[in-house]
Amino acid sequence: MSPTIAVIAPGAMGSGIARRLTEHGAAVPTLLDGRSAASRARAQAAGMQAADEAAVAGADIILSIVPPGEAAALAERLAPALRAATRKPVYVDCNAVNVDTVKAIAAIIAPTGSGFADGGIIGMPPVPGTPGPVLYLAGPAAKDLGVLAGLGLRIRVLDGPVGAASALKMSYAGITKGLTGLAAAMILAASRDGAAPALHAELAESQPQLLARFGKGLPDMYAKAYRWVAEMREIAGFLGPDDPARLIYEGMAGLFERLAADVAGEKQDIAALDAFLAIGKADAAA
Amino acid sequence: MSPTIAVIAPGAMGSGIARRLTEHGAAVPTLLDGRSAASRARAQAAGMQAADEAAVAGADIILSIVPPGEAAALAERLAPALRAATRKPVYVDCNAVNVDTVKAIAAIIAPTGSGFADGGIIGMPPVPGTPGPVLYLAGPAAKDLGVLAGLGLRIRVLDGPVGAASALKMSYAGITKGLTGLAAAMILAASRDGAAPALHAELAESQPQLLARFGKGLPDMYAKAYRWVAEMREIAGFLGPDDPARLIYEGMAGLFERLAADVAGEKQDIAALDAFLAIGKADAAA
Repeated sequence: MSPTIAVIAPGAMGSGIARRLTEHGAAVPTLLDGRSAASRARAQAAGMQAADEAAVAGADIILSIVPPGEAAALAERLAPALRAATRKPVYVDCNAVNVDTVKAIAAIIAPTGSGFADGGIIGMPPVPGTPGPVLYLAGPAAKDLGVLAGLGLRIRVLDGPVGAASALKMSYAGITKGLTGLAAAMILAASRDGAAPALHAELAESQPQLLARFGKGLPDMYAKAYRWVAEMREIAGFLGPDDPARLIYEGMAGLFERLAADVAGEKQDIAALDAFLAIGKADAAA
Repeated sequence: MSPTIAVIAPGAMGSGIARRLTEHGAAVPTLLDGRSAASRARAQAAGMQAADEAAVAGADIILSIVPPGEAAALAERLAPALRAATRKPVYVDCNAVNVDTVKAIAAIIAPTGSGFADGGIIGMPPVPGTPGPVLYLAGPAAKDLGVLAGLGLRIRVLDGPVGAASALKMSYAGITKGLTGLAAAMILAASRDGAAPALHAELAESQPQLLARFGKGLPDMYAKAYRWVAEMREIAGFLGPDDPARLIYEGMAGLFERLAADVAGEKQDIAALDAFLAIGKADAAA
């Protein structure tokens, strides 16, 4: 019998992973009540099935793939059905939450008798013809998730407790998304003070790899800035109150909040960033 | 007659630039009272001459190359001698100070009748056989400094007011040194939560350029962390009170302060960073 892998919710990442699972023969139930028409359409296109909590709890594996602020609430919502289930699934929190948060979610799931694994997804949602992101797994039940590898997912089991996969996800995003934040902040500041062309020229000469990275990374960020606000706050929480670097990520959250508002509104910052990235393009094309 | 280019002070950057100037025939007076034996030795090796304020004010050009916190004080100290000088030099503030600070320094120099240029040095101190750093110049007197190019320095004149060179320096350092800070913060946090090997493996696979950069950039930073504290504070000031990204650089200042204390003391953070960078090295050597 084909395995049943519940995936909640059908966002870009969740539906991308669900499609890969259904293409490999898995049944993929999900929760759709209260979801937008766009979510329902994504779920249907990915071959997912609308289900209730009891049906989700009857799956072999549950993958929680939601915005970081909704991760604990989903565990709370499913806990009664998991407690009632006779055959217990493994619940995998795949979200960009910090170590304390994932431990709190593990503590919500533990009394239900279900297995629990800490997951962290690194990479973009799977699209046909690409290998897709890597799902890192940690915690005692991580070793029971090998079936996912046979269903088209790239999984890597970490030798660490619940929290290790989240720590990996936080630290990786703190570097890669953090770098995009530094670039946005400094390019905007240089532009305000008339130094944008000189900054572009100096980066082109002494940091060509970084400049090339910004050319793709900044425009890719615009539409995601609103989601990165919560992720940067999770990274601040991951660092804890005594780490001076915590402030760095609180500042990043504020920066992405401002950029998200600009994307949704005046688009002045976006225009300044695009103007910076366009420096030299006209010359090169001429 | 050979030009006279005063350089204050004979730190690593100042003495490196002074040596290049003296090798090209310039006389290079400097202020040495109150300086350490090491500074005096560096000054002598670079061919610099001990001088008083009046002799410094008699130079053709004065290059201020001091820690950011001392930049305004040096201008104040030299102002009386500049006011008294019959033939006025051009005073160039080459320091990693923010736009407001360099404008304040320009306002100290203006009443003396001397010319003023805003400078920003990007790159490491010159060593024999390398082209050396670039000295960016902005402001009305920048165009009068072409003589420096004939004396072995790489100069670039920006088409901008006083502040443009500082803005360039701030924004460039905010990206490059900021990236080193992100790496240090995230590697230390991952190490605390048992995720360092996984972070190393993921960076090696998906961000090999960044990982290679950290292998050099982190150890190079250890001895400079104490200086970067002030530079990060200048960048925070450069962003101003209304920019949410200001907090990023206040956090960076705190991080480098902690790292500087660790370098001078227990060396626990340094050991964790070195251990991270050594991952895979033993395998590669075996």
